[in-house]
Amino acid sequence: MKKNAFYAQSGGVTSVINATASALILESKKYKSKIGKVFAGKNGILGALREELIDTSKESLSAIKSLREKPGGAFGSCRFKLKSLNENKKEYERLVEVFKAHNIGYFFYNGGNDSADTAFKVSEISKELGYPINCIAIPKTVDNDLAVTDCCPGFGSAAKYIATSTMEASLDVASMSETSTKVFILEVMGRHAGWMAASSALARTEKNDAPHIILLPEVAFNLNNFLSKIKKVVNQNGYCVIVASEGVKNNKGKFLAETDTKDAFGHAQLGGVAPYLSSIINKKLKLKNHWAVSDYLQRSARHIASKTDLLHAEAVGIHAVKYAIKGMNGVMPVIVRGKGKKYSWKIEPAPLSKIANVEKKLPKSFISKDGFDVTSKAIKYLQPLILGEAFPNFKDGIPTSEKLKLIEVTKKLPVWKN
Amino acid sequence: MKKNAFYAQSGGVTSVINATASALILESKKYKSKIGKVFAGKNGILGALREELIDTSKESLSAIKSLREKPGGAFGSCRFKLKSLNENKKEYERLVEVFKAHNIGYFFYNGGNDSADTAFKVSEISKELGYPINCIAIPKTVDNDLAVTDCCPGFGSAAKYIATSTMEASLDVASMSETSTKVFILEVMGRHAGWMAASSALARTEKNDAPHIILLPEVAFNLNNFLSKIKKVVNQNGYCVIVASEGVKNNKGKFLAETDTKDAFGHAQLGGVAPYLSSIINKKLKLKNHWAVSDYLQRSARHIASKTDLLHAEAVGIHAVKYAIKGMNGVMPVIVRGKGKKYSWKIEPAPLSKIANVEKKLPKSFISKDGFDVTSKAIKYLQPLILGEAFPNFKDGIPTSEKLKLIEVTKKLPVWKN
Repeated sequence: MKKNAFYAQSGGVTSVINATASALILESKKYKSKIGKVFAGKNGILGALREELIDTSKESLSAIKSLREKPGGAFGSCRFKLKSLNENKKEYERLVEVFKAHNIGYFFYNGGNDSADTAFKVSEISKELGYPINCIAIPKTVDNDLAVTDCCPGFGSAAKYIATSTMEASLDVASMSETSTKVFILEVMGRHAGWMAASSALARTEKNDAPHIILLPEVAFNLNNFLSKIKKVVNQNGYCVIVASEGVKNNKGKFLAETDTKDAFGHAQLGGVAPYLSSIINKKLKLKNHWAVSDYLQRSARHIASKTDLLHAEAVGIHAVKYAIKGMNGVMPVIVRGKGKKYSWKIEPAPLSKIANVEKKLPKSFISKDGFDVTSKAIKYLQPLILGEAFPNFKDGIPTSEKLKLIEVTKKLPVWKN
Repeated sequence: MKKNAFYAQSGGVTSVINATASALILESKKYKSKIGKVFAGKNGILGALREELIDTSKESLSAIKSLREKPGGAFGSCRFKLKSLNENKKEYERLVEVFKAHNIGYFFYNGGNDSADTAFKVSEISKELGYPINCIAIPKTVDNDLAVTDCCPGFGSAAKYIATSTMEASLDVASMSETSTKVFILEVMGRHAGWMAASSALARTEKNDAPHIILLPEVAFNLNNFLSKIKKVVNQNGYCVIVASEGVKNNKGKFLAETDTKDAFGHAQLGGVAPYLSSIINKKLKLKNHWAVSDYLQRSARHIASKTDLLHAEAVGIHAVKYAIKGMNGVMPVIVRGKGKKYSWKIEPAPLSKIANVEKKLPKSFISKDGFDVTSKAIKYLQPLILGEAFPNFKDGIPTSEKLKLIEVTKKLPVWKN
């Protein structure tokens, strides 16, 4: 009856995904009659396919607890999507083979909508192959684009980083604007959904505070309106702070960052909305500007994590275990927001069929009429997610956490070849 | 005998320049028989020329104390260098006129080497014009390039931000590297001196930790060596983290960011070393990479300020007042490092003649032989400067500080025209 568990991290990591891992491993220890060891996949699902299973029982308790403070994916993540059952059933069969060989009865997959889809498929095929396992997908993504759940662990901390950075940089620009920089552009992540750019609105405490323009992937970029708005803001305010989603597109649906800007070799430059906008502002408005691209910094900034987000991340890890030992299968622990005025939340199971491959964008009611801002409804939604601080421990001036031993289990199967 | 004081912020601001202002204003209140009011220049020295003087005595004590937690320049800064006495003596005469009109006997100028030069000139001309005032320049610059002083207030906090961000992002890249990003580039400030890029070395706790390559403005960029080094690191380590100073130059002394990369309009793109290196790595090594440009974020990140740096910033403000009331003139309070094993420091006065217009670059002994790293000597110097945390207060999820009233003194003179 006692089975081992497999846990894997998938896709882009967050500053609190290891808090989920930590909570899941600690929670598993409470059910010694049902859960044996927790094996973590080295580099996500690849670890299962390659039979590279990290034995988390070899880690000290303090190291597991310390994971709570460590950004990145402690066991390695991967961008590797299993093919469909029709296309490559062998991958699924291999997973089941590895699970069988190591007496794994619980499969925890910590990722986004792709991962929910994988967990869903594994739950189906394992039954079909006569080795049913309990598949639980656990939400994680700075993109905040999962369906059903009120928000996604990882997002709140990225949002807090973005709001804080926008506020701090705007004070800098404000003080320089009389004789120098008039426009500051911060590029944030969000290829298809504007949640991260939207969260910059939380930087405001007064009406004319930055950001003055938010560019969302949900709104087609209009150059003339953009330039007029900048001029207006600079005239009124002395300076203008813009937060741009990397995924801003033109009215043909093409990423701005991919359109006109070529590098020295004639290649389209990716991920460079900020320098692209900067060059337009130089050319058309002749306003001195500065730009920043936060890229990985925003999703790894554990030093400015949201306490609320961290608690969410831990809670989904804990509930994943609870659901698994109850025999649930093909579900995800999702965050459900309370209806009261004061922010409250609880965790409930949701079927993966409703979450797999669905992308939740900013609803229209969250976007201002002119398309350059978010509404008060958006702010009401976003605000609680960045509340509370959860500073890590520091040593020698930088955040510290214990190193893991990452000892792998002895292999029992032939080498996997795809 | 009792005179008012004038305080101005100059050049690029830092996350702790307001802590200097706060300490200076609070210290001034201790000498009521000698110092009347402290007027802050609106937008730096321009505030004096334009007779736009902010009366800090109108601010509440709590607001002045709260300045300790506020990044940016609370009274406005400026990029405005007074011309030489020969070129434009009128500017200096105007300053003295404003000082006379408002009974100002103390001039505190909080900036870099340009500001030290200005303060020095004002101290000379005021004597000549028969209205001698006590001119004290106060160090401030994230660039850490001032002579004589062991380090510059503002630098330690930027260094802590860079070391922390490098560490955090490197954990992210490490977890993605098996199937995705192999190289991560972080661009940091430092047009001519590599102190900020060098500080990324403090991210390491073990030998092979990131950063694996540091590009300094002091070392001419060699493309082949750079590419070989990346290949070697990726082969050994699975991924490579590069921290590049915005001021990296080729062997002809030209900024890399200005060389080949043109934007859509054919303009050279500035401040884009990271995207430039990214495009080279794409082309020559075909390694998936990500890049971030921290720009203003690094110098306004009060949320991750160094306690040591914050104490330095306050101490130079306090000592500026002490020197002024002792009648000192044409000096700067500088940070002097103790000789013991344990880090210690004190403040001493240094003549501005030794500091004005001198730029302190990374010494050769701080740069590794291959030019891609710093030495243990550099780390020994840098380490103490990022020690200690000084988190600000948070409200609604973001750092908070009181807003100032910024009430200006009634003008007494005709409008200034340059």
